[in-house]
Amino acid sequence: MKQKLKIIKIGGNVINDKDALSSFLADFSKIKEAKILVHGGGKRASEMISELGLKPKMVNGRRVTDESTLEIVIMVYAGLLNKNITAELQKNNCNAIGLSGVDANTILAHKRIIKDVDYGFAGDVDAVNSDIIKVLVDNELTPIFCAITHDKNGQLLNTNADTIAAELAKGMSNYFVVELIYCFEKLGVLADVNNEETLIEKIDFISLSFLKKENIIAEGMLPKIDNCFDALQSGVAKVIIGKPEVIIDNNLKHTTLTL
Amino acid sequence: MKQKLKIIKIGGNVINDKDALSSFLADFSKIKEAKILVHGGGKRASEMISELGLKPKMVNGRRVTDESTLEIVIMVYAGLLNKNITAELQKNNCNAIGLSGVDANTILAHKRIIKDVDYGFAGDVDAVNSDIIKVLVDNELTPIFCAITHDKNGQLLNTNADTIAAELAKGMSNYFVVELIYCFEKLGVLADVNNEETLIEKIDFISLSFLKKENIIAEGMLPKIDNCFDALQSGVAKVIIGKPEVIIDNNLKHTTLTL
Repeated sequence: MKQKLKIIKIGGNVINDKDALSSFLADFSKIKEAKILVHGGGKRASEMISELGLKPKMVNGRRVTDESTLEIVIMVYAGLLNKNITAELQKNNCNAIGLSGVDANTILAHKRIIKDVDYGFAGDVDAVNSDIIKVLVDNELTPIFCAITHDKNGQLLNTNADTIAAELAKGMSNYFVVELIYCFEKLGVLADVNNEETLIEKIDFISLSFLKKENIIAEGMLPKIDNCFDALQSGVAKVIIGKPEVIIDNNLKHTTLTL
Repeated sequence: MKQKLKIIKIGGNVINDKDALSSFLADFSKIKEAKILVHGGGKRASEMISELGLKPKMVNGRRVTDESTLEIVIMVYAGLLNKNITAELQKNNCNAIGLSGVDANTILAHKRIIKDVDYGFAGDVDAVNSDIIKVLVDNELTPIFCAITHDKNGQLLNTNADTIAAELAKGMSNYFVVELIYCFEKLGVLADVNNEETLIEKIDFISLSFLKKENIIAEGMLPKIDNCFDALQSGVAKVIIGKPEVIIDNNLKHTTLTL
């Protein structure tokens, strides 16, 4: 029987708040099952870009990564954030190993093809090397991925952390029963984004088509949900969207997505 | 019989020169034996410190690491340098995995005790976790260590790369026949630092005491050599000091240290 594996993604709402991050990492360390953490970048990269006199550039909510920006996101994501998160987990007796997609060739990507927008050194994931990640997990290590990948041709690439979490979940489903958990600032998927009472607790393939047809899922959430169902169709057992505390609090309401 | 393992350390003379680094990494990738790379920081950290309006502070040739400096060395060493070196090795089909001492708890250190000088967040190594590094090497991965360690209490520490290489070599000698190679700008240990004709090709314990007594080894080199003999006495099979090309060119002259 396959072993369970939890893949948990955190973003700016956790990373930007020192206490929230500390509390999340304490919770994360308590998870007994095999686990992987994927972290986004938060605002530290944008601050560093400003401190160095450059200007953060975003199109459609995604960062445009020119060469100087790439240097900075590598420094902040793979260096500062990844190593400090790993250090705090080690303090909590979680045997964390901080990784970028380049390390052990774990996540291969290609530079995004230019259509309407040139996103620069942004990477779209091609493959996850689940064999070597399994070796790490089997040796009781907890991989901590930042959102940097590579193209196997010497080029590092800035990559969306949600996508990395989904691709890791799909890849690791070969070997594990994978639960993918997206932590964000709300209880889960809300019919009315300003009202937590309107939490949609369960979404399956049938209710999804209804929610889409009736325009109940807000626009920004749609690509995220589509990614989740793509992951489910590729073998991921379950996807959860909820607040960070959901990772250890079974009573906290959240959204569960299944096929 | 124990397998061979080469542990190679490079510093600023290789890292600061893009072509020299590329050529070194191409050579390094050709080494067939199990191998580990340890890299120093080079001048990029000092440049970044200046770009951010801070001032690099050195005492006795060692960096004084205050909190802002620590942030920057983590970003540059563990982020920018470590991931770019790893990416280039991956391009050369060397299955590199970039690590800091915090990752998988590989290198434990403590904040240097204040005697005459307060070096700030500088780490002195306490232990190398050779078991988990062996797991990586046995799985045909090539660990690439930057000079960042941790204290298992959440604190990252800036650590001398020469020391890390020596401590890794000592630790890994439990499992491997370890050859430790320090790459630097000269052919090896020179009796007259300005004359490569005065290369001392072999130093053993007996000739060392002679060289010391006669003040033939220059002052800056002494602690380095003492570290090498400490490593040899702790089980390292051989230490080599030489130019970067020595790692694949058997005909290039160098200094070999043995007991």
